[in-house]
Amino acid sequence: MVLTLVGLGLNDERDASLRGLEAIREGDIVYLENYTATLNVNAERLERFFEKPVILADRDFVEKYSEAMVDAAKSKHVVCLVVGDPFCATTHTDLFLRARQKGVTVKVVHNASIMNAVATCGLQLYRFGETVSIPFFDGNWKPVSFYDKIKKNRANNMHTLCLLDIKVKEQSIENMMKGNNIFEPPRFMTVSTAIKQLIEASEMQNGEKIGDILAFGLARIGADDQTIVSGSLEELAEAELGGPLQSLVLCAPELHEIEKEFVELYRVR
Amino acid sequence: MVLTLVGLGLNDERDASLRGLEAIREGDIVYLENYTATLNVNAERLERFFEKPVILADRDFVEKYSEAMVDAAKSKHVVCLVVGDPFCATTHTDLFLRARQKGVTVKVVHNASIMNAVATCGLQLYRFGETVSIPFFDGNWKPVSFYDKIKKNRANNMHTLCLLDIKVKEQSIENMMKGNNIFEPPRFMTVSTAIKQLIEASEMQNGEKIGDILAFGLARIGADDQTIVSGSLEELAEAELGGPLQSLVLCAPELHEIEKEFVELYRVR
Repeated sequence: MVLTLVGLGLNDERDASLRGLEAIREGDIVYLENYTATLNVNAERLERFFEKPVILADRDFVEKYSEAMVDAAKSKHVVCLVVGDPFCATTHTDLFLRARQKGVTVKVVHNASIMNAVATCGLQLYRFGETVSIPFFDGNWKPVSFYDKIKKNRANNMHTLCLLDIKVKEQSIENMMKGNNIFEPPRFMTVSTAIKQLIEASEMQNGEKIGDILAFGLARIGADDQTIVSGSLEELAEAELGGPLQSLVLCAPELHEIEKEFVELYRVR
Repeated sequence: MVLTLVGLGLNDERDASLRGLEAIREGDIVYLENYTATLNVNAERLERFFEKPVILADRDFVEKYSEAMVDAAKSKHVVCLVVGDPFCATTHTDLFLRARQKGVTVKVVHNASIMNAVATCGLQLYRFGETVSIPFFDGNWKPVSFYDKIKKNRANNMHTLCLLDIKVKEQSIENMMKGNNIFEPPRFMTVSTAIKQLIEASEMQNGEKIGDILAFGLARIGADDQTIVSGSLEELAEAELGGPLQSLVLCAPELHEIEKEFVELYRVR
């Protein structure tokens, strides 16, 4: 049969495309990948809207669910719902490949993801360089490879989209040791935290002053209450953007005229 | 009132999102921007499906239609349909800004565009550098700035998405001089033509041999008959990918393991 990867887009059930909705309605089993990103609505609302039970595939996605999906897709129509676009996370690229290798037909329904919707801030999408992920620093665990990539983009006069860490269904070490099925509340990195880590990374690397770099802070892009602010990193470190998901964009050193107008339009007060 | 920019996605009317469909059904006037990209269906089919008349805004989009749209949006709900995502072309960024400056509320409904759907070839989206546009060479008019950008991306170990030129509603010089309202048939650049121009550009610049560079040729991404092939530029120059729209992706010099698997999966025969 077939495995259909359906991108759900950015915000809620109404961001599904008609093509996606058709696949969901036709599907025998519907999974929701709920690990690399989240919508602004919960699975129950999706179930009611799609009139289908939805299986949550979370933290154990890669190890547990992806094999189950591929096996089921040998005889059934399996639908895997993905926040954003199906190919924006490596996880699903891997799932696609496994399915193909096992002879399963894979269909893809594309949708918006932050990787293209980021252009709503007014920076031109073609001018973005490599995308970086900023992970939560944890005690002495402070990986800063994102910092070199940002420097490389800026040296090449490119913008940088920074994807901010989310922690869903994490266990404390204590609960993990005891085998307790208790999970920490989800954590979503804010623009403010990202900037503080970025400044810490710059100090660890070479002490470079980066507080003056122009940037955009984005929150809940695609939702009715989406928020966009621009300013220097220093200014944005103090900005309050509300709930998740948030992203940070560092501007290229040189901006086009129209990009400068957007910086003014969204300038933080 | 309001101007809603609705992304239609990649292929046909079923790629509209439910949120987009709602805006279209509620709109007083619906325009379709039909200049920077095209769907695989015509406007009549969209009109029947959306149950709304659709005004085609083509070549004269910027000069003529965008002002009309903004003015109408002062008292009506104006919907502007855009192939892909509304912010993937500078034209619409500009429209957004004009509307805001005139005090019009602008809403945006995001959708997939080639800028994120390109990841369906298996190359990781976060590793893409600056996007380039390859224009049709015309006699002695051979702008090659795309070539330096590709070199820069490769020097930084990034992939490059090349958007290929389309010519819609062009006039011959003769018809233009005579004021005849006659237009040339639309032209869509193929991967094969893009590669030939790329090789010509490399010869003009420094004579560098680029035929061995690994690349992906994409056609009609998001449609049922989408085609993806991989191989060296030399191999892909001979590949026949069928109808439009086509895109070319040049790989970064180093590929991850999973990316290499995709190169094998799609290798041209």
